[in-house]
Amino acid sequence: MAFKITKELLENVALYIENGNNNALSSLFAEMHHADIAEILDEISFDYAVYIIKLLDSETTAEVLMDVDDDVREKILKNLSAKEIAEEIDALDTDDAADIIAELPEERQEAVMSEIEDESHAKDIVDLLRYDEDSAGGLMAKELVKVNVNWTVLKCVKEMRAQAEEVTRVHSIYVVDDSGKLKGRLSLKDLLIASTRTSISEVYIPKVDFVKVNDEAEDVANIMRKYDLEAIPVVDELGILVGRITIDDIVDVIKEEADKDYQLAAGLVEDVEADDSIAQLTRARLPWLFLGLIGGVGAFLIMEGFQDIFKEDAILFFFTPLIAAMAGNVGVQSSAIIVQGLANDDIKGSINNRLIKEMLLAALNGFILAIFLFLFIWFYNGETQKALAISVSLIIVIIVAGIIGTFIPLFLDKRGIDPAIATGPFITTSNDIFGILIYFWIAKLIIGI
Amino acid sequence: MAFKITKELLENVALYIENGNNNALSSLFAEMHHADIAEILDEISFDYAVYIIKLLDSETTAEVLMDVDDDVREKILKNLSAKEIAEEIDALDTDDAADIIAELPEERQEAVMSEIEDESHAKDIVDLLRYDEDSAGGLMAKELVKVNVNWTVLKCVKEMRAQAEEVTRVHSIYVVDDSGKLKGRLSLKDLLIASTRTSISEVYIPKVDFVKVNDEAEDVANIMRKYDLEAIPVVDELGILVGRITIDDIVDVIKEEADKDYQLAAGLVEDVEADDSIAQLTRARLPWLFLGLIGGVGAFLIMEGFQDIFKEDAILFFFTPLIAAMAGNVGVQSSAIIVQGLANDDIKGSINNRLIKEMLLAALNGFILAIFLFLFIWFYNGETQKALAISVSLIIVIIVAGIIGTFIPLFLDKRGIDPAIATGPFITTSNDIFGILIYFWIAKLIIGI
Repeated sequence: MAFKITKELLENVALYIENGNNNALSSLFAEMHHADIAEILDEISFDYAVYIIKLLDSETTAEVLMDVDDDVREKILKNLSAKEIAEEIDALDTDDAADIIAELPEERQEAVMSEIEDESHAKDIVDLLRYDEDSAGGLMAKELVKVNVNWTVLKCVKEMRAQAEEVTRVHSIYVVDDSGKLKGRLSLKDLLIASTRTSISEVYIPKVDFVKVNDEAEDVANIMRKYDLEAIPVVDELGILVGRITIDDIVDVIKEEADKDYQLAAGLVEDVEADDSIAQLTRARLPWLFLGLIGGVGAFLIMEGFQDIFKEDAILFFFTPLIAAMAGNVGVQSSAIIVQGLANDDIKGSINNRLIKEMLLAALNGFILAIFLFLFIWFYNGETQKALAISVSLIIVIIVAGIIGTFIPLFLDKRGIDPAIATGPFITTSNDIFGILIYFWIAKLIIGI
Repeated sequence: MAFKITKELLENVALYIENGNNNALSSLFAEMHHADIAEILDEISFDYAVYIIKLLDSETTAEVLMDVDDDVREKILKNLSAKEIAEEIDALDTDDAADIIAELPEERQEAVMSEIEDESHAKDIVDLLRYDEDSAGGLMAKELVKVNVNWTVLKCVKEMRAQAEEVTRVHSIYVVDDSGKLKGRLSLKDLLIASTRTSISEVYIPKVDFVKVNDEAEDVANIMRKYDLEAIPVVDELGILVGRITIDDIVDVIKEEADKDYQLAAGLVEDVEADDSIAQLTRARLPWLFLGLIGGVGAFLIMEGFQDIFKEDAILFFFTPLIAAMAGNVGVQSSAIIVQGLANDDIKGSINNRLIKEMLLAALNGFILAIFLFLFIWFYNGETQKALAISVSLIIVIIVAGIIGTFIPLFLDKRGIDPAIATGPFITTSNDIFGILIYFWIAKLIIGI
């Protein structure tokens, strides 16, 4: 069942478009899932993509638009009229519709909104645009099935049939009171089993998980993952049910969050893919490399500063790459554990305890590694004092690197900055410099020059 | 609504256990979600955890057991009798039950299986144990709602009510023929709307996504994410419906896969959390650090080999940390993009094209960085030739680092090895050594010694 884009398929699509063979195109795409069509649009030339979007009905293309790469979507939207975009919007659920509108320049937003035929749909979208895209409000859709706690099962089923027409997927059925406040939920299973004369107040489940409109997307994801929820209702400040978030959106949040952290750790500042242009890839990669360059110049200045002292001891200079590498690696390890712990919300206890633990851990690791290094240098050139100086420095460098790697993400998190930026090149570079400085300083102390 | 473990809560639990106040414990936990109880068990002493598991009914504790940390679960299971474990198993869906059984030592597995009362449940579990845990078969549960294509909606609803009792959450209803082959699905929404006299063959949707038992978990995750599925049926080699996978399990797969890649990139070889013991954290961190140590010794040997040639040119040695850092950073960036592309299945085109693109990209980045470095050295000490030698070396080092970072993960993937192990310390260390070697070699050529 796996769909695979083949060269033949892309050639056929191109051929049909060149020949204006719209029937062949329509019947080709009629069989396809919108996510597969989106994959094709990502691969073909931009003019062809616009051609296909204009050809197919907006029921299909609206979903396709949600699935194509961001840059492809941006280009396509530029080439559609306000009326055409409004047609796509009409076919989308409110959450997706709001996402598309939010991507448009402000003057176009108004033009498109005024073309939307379904007024309540337009009102819902405007409502959603108020929320930050990384909040529960930014993720939620207005479409949901809700019933009044005072209805009977019969009335409930009747109302649900009408509401279900509007909703792509029915998850839980939410129960509200007369003022619209969330009271609980009905499971579809219970509804299947219950008799039609029963009152909702007798069968509904008063315990229901929910989030508030201003909760952060990442927290919503953690809650839904922890409690294995497939949908969660969203309430406003007064407890009134205003929307619901479904698991498919949360899957995307989890995936994007993980990708972003991974890219930051790898030293990429923009969300890039292997197939992006060289210009995009350069923009994503140069900033951190530039930081590395500055760090390297810093290391150069430090080493130059120590050159007279160690004229006789060139061996010390030959171990700077080792010291820098260890400082960088330890820093990245420590910071990664903290960043992941913060993301999963399982960092407990005080910062002090955490730093003491990291110090012990780094000391243990450092001690084990230093023994090997000492033995190597000692066997290799027999100079006990230098072997000792280098090994002891290594231990201290590792301890400091561990503390920096632990402290910086915790500090950033406390200040409300995403701690993930502290991983990767940032930690590596600062630890390189600190490491080399500490190394020469301690070595100088021990050798006693 | 967010649940937070407080010190008071933990103290209360400890007090109740010490005083044998079982009523207070039961009523405390009766109100709690099993995922919250699991969080408490992760925090309290192990004896208390076993006490609570034995106290609460197995309906609750079975779910709690699925949610506690792996090491806590292992210890608890060791302290339960075969009969007690069988009671937990009876209360679990087949997929979770099979996961628990699979974690037991082989001789205990048989003892537990023989104590399970529900024979068809036991048979389903044995069935699931055959599959690799990273395959669709290893993820699926046997519990599902299926109806025969030849039934009417009335018969279907009746049968479903019986089946629904067994199934925790009803997703799609799967439609099979007389031989059990998957024919399509019924949406709950359609069923809500359809009249009872209609035949299933008239209302079912013949187009249904499915996976095969031996498909890899990561591929299943990609399919469900791409098509926004909340459940997917699993068929065997003959197309017979044998189980279904739900999105909550896939969320865990996505999260675990992302965490694993992140940890590998950060140089951690085991799945560790910030709260693990120092021994565990050391085991996870030492191996890559040791690799870094060996790399550092390699760098030392290279630099020592060049020491006579450059007696006059100490400045070259002071730039080795810069060269090593740039080689490492570029390598990590390149490999991260490839590893992420492979995981998301969007690496298209040949390896050769990919390497050529990476070479161009690295050359562009390297050139920009080299200009800055050249200007710095030139202004700083005015030696044009050395500035040129170092800058040109930097460009070549960056190109080689980019190629290594691109090639190694692609190569590993082709050989069926997880490319994620090629990120982080592995790439950093090998690029450090290659980088320093190339640097001295090129510099030597240009300076012409």
